Amino acid sequence: MKIIIVGASGTMGTHLVKALREEHEVITVASKGCDIDADITSTESIENLFRQTGSFDALISTAGPTFVGPWSKLNDTTFRNGVEGKMMGQINLVLIGQNYINPKGSFTLITGALTYEPQVNFANASAANGAVEGFVRAAAIELENGIRINAVSPTVIEDSPQYFPYFPGEIPTTMRQLEFMFRKSLFGKITGHIIRP
Amino acid sequence: MKIIIVGASGTMGTHLVKALREEHEVITVASKGCDIDADITSTESIENLFRQTGSFDALISTAGPTFVGPWSKLNDTTFRNGVEGKMMGQINLVLIGQNYINPKGSFTLITGALTYEPQVNFANASAANGAVEGFVRAAAIELENGIRINAVSPTVIEDSPQYFPYFPGEIPTTMRQLEFMFRKSLFGKITGHIIRP
Repeated sequence: MKIIIVGASGTMGTHLVKALREEHEVITVASKGCDIDADITSTESIENLFRQTGSFDALISTAGPTFVGPWSKLNDTTFRNGVEGKMMGQINLVLIGQNYINPKGSFTLITGALTYEPQVNFANASAANGAVEGFVRAAAIELENGIRINAVSPTVIEDSPQYFPYFPGEIPTTMRQLEFMFRKSLFGKITGHIIRP
Repeated sequence: MKIIIVGASGTMGTHLVKALREEHEVITVASKGCDIDADITSTESIENLFRQTGSFDALISTAGPTFVGPWSKLNDTTFRNGVEGKMMGQINLVLIGQNYINPKGSFTLITGALTYEPQVNFANASAANGAVEGFVRAAAIELENGIRINAVSPTVIEDSPQYFPYFPGEIPTTMRQLEFMFRKSLFGKITGHIIRP
């Protein structure tokens, strides 16, 4: 299977690349330092990405820039971090990528527990996650040729302990759980699901 | 209670203005033809709105422009209708309005069943709704001075029968149900809730 992993240099992406590369053709994408450099906040850069990959079987995204910081600093400008990054960045990967993906291919986007379990400093991520999850459910009934779409929604990630203090009471998602959530979307047949640990 | 109703000239807004005006001071807001003209896609226009209203006790929004149309026409440009309108328009009403609202005041935004029950042609609304609902839950734990925030999430509206063919199987929300959902947010004490019929 030819799998594109966007956000491949991050904590989640690095693990997924290693796990999936054993059995699949993996193309790594990040803002820099991977097989293909791409800026998901730019539709031109996304188009350019798919022109380079050509047709593919699955796209995984773990790319989710958002504004993290005190509520007093949240305004229209800072909110755009999540709107352009985690929200429209991932949505545009699908809206543009659908023209390149093979029949019966799949998109798997990243959201997170913040959709339903807010934490102080992360309102921008809660909104971006909610948007992506609403989009995933809607896109699942619109995409043709058997193309599927799901989102993976982990809690705070085991390998990102620096975030633990900001997620009191949240049981971390292990890297194995994370990997298996993506496997469920990639190799199962579900569509329109939000996959949780 | 001094209540601002944004989207006051629409189907939902007209009903709410009539119902609430009997016992409260209601300030109507719409793009044109109401007490105050405002464009919620402009932060400048929103600031100008609150400078005119001064302090207030509650803000209700029924304003939700989104792109409605075939999936083949959905792209970054058309998607912005919902991003700037129903999503950021309503979010900015809160981020800016929090500087003008009285302690123990409330914000009540509009979402809709499309968040969880997608229909063909409405993916943009599903995403915008999801964003607003994620934001509402997050804002509820950040807003200070006892300020509350909720969203009302109706199905297709009884008085908008022109939409019925696009919502097969969806039992319409009556105007009375809609009004009472807003009353629950306005006069109850809940915060961070998505209120459904």
